[in-house]
Amino acid sequence: MSAVPVSSSEPMLLRHDDGGVTTLTLNRPNQFNSLSFEMLETLIEAVDEIARDDSVRVVVLAGEGKAFCAGHDLKEMRGNYSKDFQQRLFRLCGKFMMKLTELPQPVIARVHGIATAAGCQLVSMCDLAVAADVSRFAVSGINVGLFCATPGVGLSRNMGRKEAFEMLVTGDFIDAHEAQRRGLVNRVVPLEQLDEEVARLAAAIVAKSPVAIRMGKQMFYKQLEMGLEAAYQMAAETMACNAMCEDAAEGMDAFAAKRKPVWKGR
Amino acid sequence: MSAVPVSSSEPMLLRHDDGGVTTLTLNRPNQFNSLSFEMLETLIEAVDEIARDDSVRVVVLAGEGKAFCAGHDLKEMRGNYSKDFQQRLFRLCGKFMMKLTELPQPVIARVHGIATAAGCQLVSMCDLAVAADVSRFAVSGINVGLFCATPGVGLSRNMGRKEAFEMLVTGDFIDAHEAQRRGLVNRVVPLEQLDEEVARLAAAIVAKSPVAIRMGKQMFYKQLEMGLEAAYQMAAETMACNAMCEDAAEGMDAFAAKRKPVWKGR
Amino acid sequence: MSAVPVSSSEPMLLRHDDGGVTTLTLNRPNQFNSLSFEMLETLIEAVDEIARDDSVRVVVLAGEGKAFCAGHDLKEMRGNYSKDFQQRLFRLCGKFMMKLTELPQPVIARVHGIATAAGCQLVSMCDLAVAADVSRFAVSGINVGLFCATPGVGLSRNMGRKEAFEMLVTGDFIDAHEAQRRGLVNRVVPLEQLDEEVARLAAAIVAKSPVAIRMGKQMFYKQLEMGLEAAYQMAAETMACNAMCEDAAEGMDAFAAKRKPVWKGR
Repeated sequence: MSAVPVSSSEPMLLRHDDGGVTTLTLNRPNQFNSLSFEMLETLIEAVDEIARDDSVRVVVLAGEGKAFCAGHDLKEMRGNYSKDFQQRLFRLCGKFMMKLTELPQPVIARVHGIATAAGCQLVSMCDLAVAADVSRFAVSGINVGLFCATPGVGLSRNMGRKEAFEMLVTGDFIDAHEAQRRGLVNRVVPLEQLDEEVARLAAAIVAKSPVAIRMGKQMFYKQLEMGLEAAYQMAAETMACNAMCEDAAEGMDAFAAKRKPVWKGR
Repeated sequence: MSAVPVSSSEPMLLRHDDGGVTTLTLNRPNQFNSLSFEMLETLIEAVDEIARDDSVRVVVLAGEGKAFCAGHDLKEMRGNYSKDFQQRLFRLCGKFMMKLTELPQPVIARVHGIATAAGCQLVSMCDLAVAADVSRFAVSGINVGLFCATPGVGLSRNMGRKEAFEMLVTGDFIDAHEAQRRGLVNRVVPLEQLDEEVARLAAAIVAKSPVAIRMGKQMFYKQLEMGLEAAYQMAAETMACNAMCEDAAEGMDAFAAKRKPVWKGR
Repeated sequence: MSAVPVSSSEPMLLRHDDGGVTTLTLNRPNQFNSLSFEMLETLIEAVDEIARDDSVRVVVLAGEGKAFCAGHDLKEMRGNYSKDFQQRLFRLCGKFMMKLTELPQPVIARVHGIATAAGCQLVSMCDLAVAADVSRFAVSGINVGLFCATPGVGLSRNMGRKEAFEMLVTGDFIDAHEAQRRGLVNRVVPLEQLDEEVARLAAAIVAKSPVAIRMGKQMFYKQLEMGLEAAYQMAAETMACNAMCEDAAEGMDAFAAKRKPVWKGR
């Protein structure tokens, strides 16, 4: 495995492809992988590229160094202290977060250390998350006078409103097990088993029909924002389209013949 | 207790009435109670009849044989392999699922075995669910190339989005206790106590005022899709109407007199 | 500490101010602090006053006597038995509940005993809740022929829909630990530590920038009712505005200098 920087001059994001699993690694360890303006632009570029790349079946989002991601770059925010910059920064951040749910491929957060503020938001906006038991989560902007408004959007869609509100107004950390109990992460394992567990989850998805996963993820987030009746109408249409795919025919035939299906991806 | 088939020629659905509790039992045990086109039509017919029947106070949905319900009939889907059939099938399925929430009477899923794909959806769309500790839940369509889009609608309205998404892309089972922790089922008991526990929950509802239960269930699902202010406006009107019912007057008088209320059902 | 009645003639609500924390105590212990028409009017008046009072940073809602709050005053409802009165009562109740989320300051429910019907609703509509381990929660209107429609609005926005539905149709109690597991309360402690725990949570919020808390709470409930994209747009604008506040500049500077920030509240 050889990880190569997306941009050769500034390796702030590493990309590694292996068997349909693309790992994007935030590579600003000394800044706790903070989401600077440039980091966000680099992430958007990488995600846009992946969206067009059918060879990528699953994306893993990881962090280099001690922290997973400590949120925005406060130094940069203070150094560019205009309303205009802050607006452009947070709109860019929101744009990137939306792209995670719009991406055809599922995204797994691989959380090995602290995930704070927009770093916690990043976990909340990934489709799935696997966390080391030593990892911790907080929306700590309130400690520097900045209510984590944008992280709150993702957080309150992962856990109960009182649970999210408490984190937002206290800035307190929760540990990995509590994060799992609340729905912020799917699985918690000892740090030394983190890569194995992420690989296992990724492999389970890679083994599925790509077209079914793609159609499914797309409808999943849309239906969440609909009333029950509209959601069922869209979901029924998705199922009918999916059922007419070659992969579904193959899947049903393989099931009837008690053999493993061979996906064609269409 | 004698269970009689809804249709005499094809007993695919059994109906049994006992003291205000109507049990509908899926009766295709050899097909794991799969929801064929005809099964869905039969269920809709049965539910429509119940909706007009004031003697029914609670509905229990059960399954005959080893499984609770294994979802759609893949053989039928493959044997009628046109977009038109799939659309009609999944629209019919969505129509039936909506009818469970539209039904004036509360519906309890009695889950004794596996509930997969649309069978898991069935559990998610019942108002309440009691599960045997040996029961298991999965949205396993993805294993045959079919993302469980319609089951995902119900599932993601019962548990956290990451929890639902993981089940949808992996097809993995969760056990009954995990289903309870996530909100998919209300109660978990040993298999041999399942009927007793279902009966206890049903009896608790039968003991209440029918008109209050009916008004309550109707507003419950409507308000879930509204903003807070609109929800309160509708709920306040419901409460005022409910308060002016004879049963509410009787309930308040009985409470003041420290005696048991006698409901008239209006 | 001296608690003074809001109205000298009828001390049904006590207000006590201490270091930015205002405690409102329901003071109808013999009526289990039931929410009579007058109690609701008194609460609205008190909350409106607090909304204009910048010296108040956190509100604690407590109850005098054995119960936290047992809901509406059934005697009053039965004694004013017209549709018009019921409508005015429940609209007033909804208005007050909405004001809790509209209030700029966070509201903590201090639950020391039973919270039933609209009393349980009250807990659900506070931003945060700390409960004694002896406290219990129910939406028990159904026992007197009154489906807790308005309490259901808050309840179903705190916990899973099946969990809420079961409570609404059975009227059954859940204990404090179960309430915490479901998301209805944030913290559970032994009764003798309740005041200490409430004070600790309140102090954590008082230590934060008032302007950040205010902007944050306001956007939090708005974004909950929006789709993901609209929520991010609003949240990004909130963050940009918040970042340009003096407190945020101070917070970032203090963070860089590794010193404690001094808030100016703007």
